Amino acid sequence: MKHELDTLMQSADIDGLLVTGPAMHNPAMVYMIGVAHVTAGDLIKKRGAPAILFHGVMEREEAAKSGLQCVSYNKYPWAELFAAADGDLNLAMALRYQKMFAEAGISAGRIAVYGLSEVGAAISIFKYLENLMPGLELVGFTKDELLMQAQMTKDVEEVARIRHMGKITTEVVARTAEYLTTGKPVNGVMTHQDGLPLTIGEVRGKINLWLAELGAENPEATIFAIGRDAGIPHSIGSDSDLIELGKPIVYDIFPCEAGGGYFYDFTRTWCLGYAPDAVLRLYEDVLTVFKTLLRELEVGAPFKRYQVRTCELFEAMGHPTIATHPEVEEGYIHSIGHGVGINIHEKPFSGASAAGTDSLIPGTVFTIEPGLYYPSRGMGVRLEDTFYTRPDGKFEILAPYSLDLVLPVKS
Amino acid sequence: MKHELDTLMQSADIDGLLVTGPAMHNPAMVYMIGVAHVTAGDLIKKRGAPAILFHGVMEREEAAKSGLQCVSYNKYPWAELFAAADGDLNLAMALRYQKMFAEAGISAGRIAVYGLSEVGAAISIFKYLENLMPGLELVGFTKDELLMQAQMTKDVEEVARIRHMGKITTEVVARTAEYLTTGKPVNGVMTHQDGLPLTIGEVRGKINLWLAELGAENPEATIFAIGRDAGIPHSIGSDSDLIELGKPIVYDIFPCEAGGGYFYDFTRTWCLGYAPDAVLRLYEDVLTVFKTLLRELEVGAPFKRYQVRTCELFEAMGHPTIATHPEVEEGYIHSIGHGVGINIHEKPFSGASAAGTDSLIPGTVFTIEPGLYYPSRGMGVRLEDTFYTRPDGKFEILAPYSLDLVLPVKS
Repeated sequence: MKHELDTLMQSADIDGLLVTGPAMHNPAMVYMIGVAHVTAGDLIKKRGAPAILFHGVMEREEAAKSGLQCVSYNKYPWAELFAAADGDLNLAMALRYQKMFAEAGISAGRIAVYGLSEVGAAISIFKYLENLMPGLELVGFTKDELLMQAQMTKDVEEVARIRHMGKITTEVVARTAEYLTTGKPVNGVMTHQDGLPLTIGEVRGKINLWLAELGAENPEATIFAIGRDAGIPHSIGSDSDLIELGKPIVYDIFPCEAGGGYFYDFTRTWCLGYAPDAVLRLYEDVLTVFKTLLRELEVGAPFKRYQVRTCELFEAMGHPTIATHPEVEEGYIHSIGHGVGINIHEKPFSGASAAGTDSLIPGTVFTIEPGLYYPSRGMGVRLEDTFYTRPDGKFEILAPYSLDLVLPVKS
Repeated sequence: MKHELDTLMQSADIDGLLVTGPAMHNPAMVYMIGVAHVTAGDLIKKRGAPAILFHGVMEREEAAKSGLQCVSYNKYPWAELFAAADGDLNLAMALRYQKMFAEAGISAGRIAVYGLSEVGAAISIFKYLENLMPGLELVGFTKDELLMQAQMTKDVEEVARIRHMGKITTEVVARTAEYLTTGKPVNGVMTHQDGLPLTIGEVRGKINLWLAELGAENPEATIFAIGRDAGIPHSIGSDSDLIELGKPIVYDIFPCEAGGGYFYDFTRTWCLGYAPDAVLRLYEDVLTVFKTLLRELEVGAPFKRYQVRTCELFEAMGHPTIATHPEVEEGYIHSIGHGVGINIHEKPFSGASAAGTDSLIPGTVFTIEPGLYYPSRGMGVRLEDTFYTRPDGKFEILAPYSLDLVLPVKS
C-alpha cells in the first residue's frame, strides 16, 4: 500500500522517485496522484517527504484535485531554459528537471524512475540530466520491489474500485449472453431478427457501447474469438467471423475505469446451442484444474506454486505445457495468473520470472486463469476470475458469474 | 510520409530505428505496423531494409496482420536469457535486444528509439544494452526531424481516416447540441423531462456513449467546461456542474479511432439560450482572429508566423498574450495550433520552440484554435477546426460545423 513507500524506498536504497507522463492511462502516475486529469506532468518525491506534482499552468485546477503540493512549470520560464540549452529541446527539459529536483530538495542520490512516456526522448533527456547532476543516478525497475510492491496490496478503497469494475464487467457479460442468444439460428449460424448473420464485429461494438454506458473502457481490445482464433490466447478475434453454434468462443474482458484507472479481468468460454464432445472434454479439463486450484489456494503461498501445480495437472491429463516444453504453441502455454489493480498485469506474478515476494498475501487481488489451446483443432478454452485475498484470510471472487460452457439459444 | 523514412534516417545520420511498446495507444508503433493489435512488441528497422516486428508467440496472428516480417520472441528462449542474466530481468531484456539487433543485421551505429513504454525500465535496459554493444548509440528525439517529420505529411489513406474521425466528431457534437437544447430551462438551469437539473457529468456520459457507438474513443477526457472552468484551457470541467443558461461552455473534443489510431480535434464555445454581452464580445474577438487567420493562411508558410500574428491581433484588441507576458494566466495563453494525425499533437507545431520545418506544406493536417481565457470573470472562449493542406494548395476544413455561439433552447 502507498503508505509503505518510504520504507520500500529505504530497503531499495532509493533516495527519490520521479514519475513522469500524463495522469491518464499511466498507472504509476494515476496511482500517485489519484483522479486528477493532468495531461502532462512530473511527480518527484524525496524519501521521507511528501510528493510534489509539477504541471502545465493550464492544468492547475486539475492538478490541485490531487491534493498534493503543486508547482506549475511556469516557475521555470521555458524561453530561458530553451536559450540556455541553445535550442536543444532535450537539454532544456533536462535543465528543467534539475530545477525541479532542487525544488524537491534533491541534489544527488539514486532516483527510481517510473511512468509511461516516449522512451526515446526520455533516454536523451536523462542522459543530459545525469551529466548535469553527476551525483544523480537514475534507476529503472521491471516488475520491481518498490512501486509495484506498494501497489501489490490494496486498501479498502482500491478493492471497492476493482469490485465496482467487476460488477460492470459481469453486467456487460450478462448483456452479451442475452444479445447472443436472442437471435435465431439459421443453418447453424446466429442471425438478427432480419435474418442477416451476426458477426463478431457487431458483438464487439455492443460490448464497447455497454462499457462506455457503464463508465468503463477497454484500453486494449476485448478478446472475443471463435473457433481457431479461440485457440490463440491473444487473438482478439476477427470482426467478420460469424457466430456459429457449437464453436467455442473465448471471451476475455478486462476493462478499467474511464480515463485509465483500476481494472477487472474476467474470461468465460461459451458454445452457443451445444458443445461438441471435443470442446466439452477440453472445457472439463480446464474446469477441473480451475476448481482444484481454488481448493488448494493458501494465504501467503508463493503464486508460482500454482503455476507448477497447473502444469502438473494438465500434464497428467495428457496436455503439453510450457513446464516441459517451453516453446510449445499448443496445450497450456501461459502463466496461471497475475495481480490486477491500477495495472492490468501487476504483482503478484506467477510465471517463471516471478519474484520471491510474489505471494498471495492479504490485500492482493489476482486472477486464476487456466486455459488449453489447440488452434490446429479449431478450439481453445479459458476460464478466469479475479480474486481478493481478504484480511480475514479468505479468498473472494470479486464478481461471481456462472462458469457454464453452453449458452442455450432461445428460439 | 512513411516512404521518406530511409531518406530522413540518412539525413539524421541514423542507422536504425527501434520502436517499442504495444501497438495500441502508442503512436509510433501504430504508425509503423498499421492496424494489428499487438499488446507488446518491438520493431527494428535497419536503414535501407524492411522493418522486422518482434512479438509474443501468443500474438503471432495479430502480428502477421501488419504485413511485416515477424519474429516471435520464442526464438530467444527466455529461460536461457534469464539464466545468462543471473535473474536480472533488465539485463535479460538487454540480451534479447542484442539478439534482435543481430537478426536485423545491426551490430553498431546510431539507433533512434521510439515508443510509449515504461521509461524507468527502458533506462535500465538500454544502459545494459549500450554496455553489451559498445558500438551502439541509442538516441532519442523530442518533436524530431525523423519519425515525426515523416508523420507530418499524410497520404490519401491517412487523410481519409482523419476525415472519418472528423465526421464522427461533428456527429457527436450535433447530438450533444440536440441533447442540451431539448430539456426545459427552470430558473435558468437546464433540466430533464422529469424536472431534475442536467449535469456536466451526464453530458459527458452521453458523449462517451456516442463516441463508442460510432467506433471512436477519447483516450484523454473530452473537455466540457462551463463558466469559470471554461476560462482554464485544460480544465475538463466539473461533473457536478449544472448547465446554466448564458454561461459559456467550452467543448473541446479530440477522439481517435478505437484502440488508439488517427485523431480529430475540434472546439466550439456555446451559450444556451442567450449570450451575455461580455461573453459575446469575447467570442467576437476570437471569431475575428479565427477568420483573419483563415484568410491569411499560405501554403508552405512557417506555422509560427500565425502564432505571432494571433498575439499581435489579440494585443491590438487589448488582451494580454504570452508574446508580451510569457507567464500570463489570463488572455491568450497557448499556441495557435498543432499538427493532428496518429498523435493528437504532432508536427507542424506553432509555438516558440517549433522547428524550422514546421510549415504548412501540402499533406499537413493541423488545427487553428484561437482562444481567450478570463477565469476571474467566469469565462473563456475557444474555436477550433482541423485543416488539411491539399496537394492543390487549398486549405480544407475536414469536418465543417457551425461556429455559432448561442444554442437556442427549444421549449
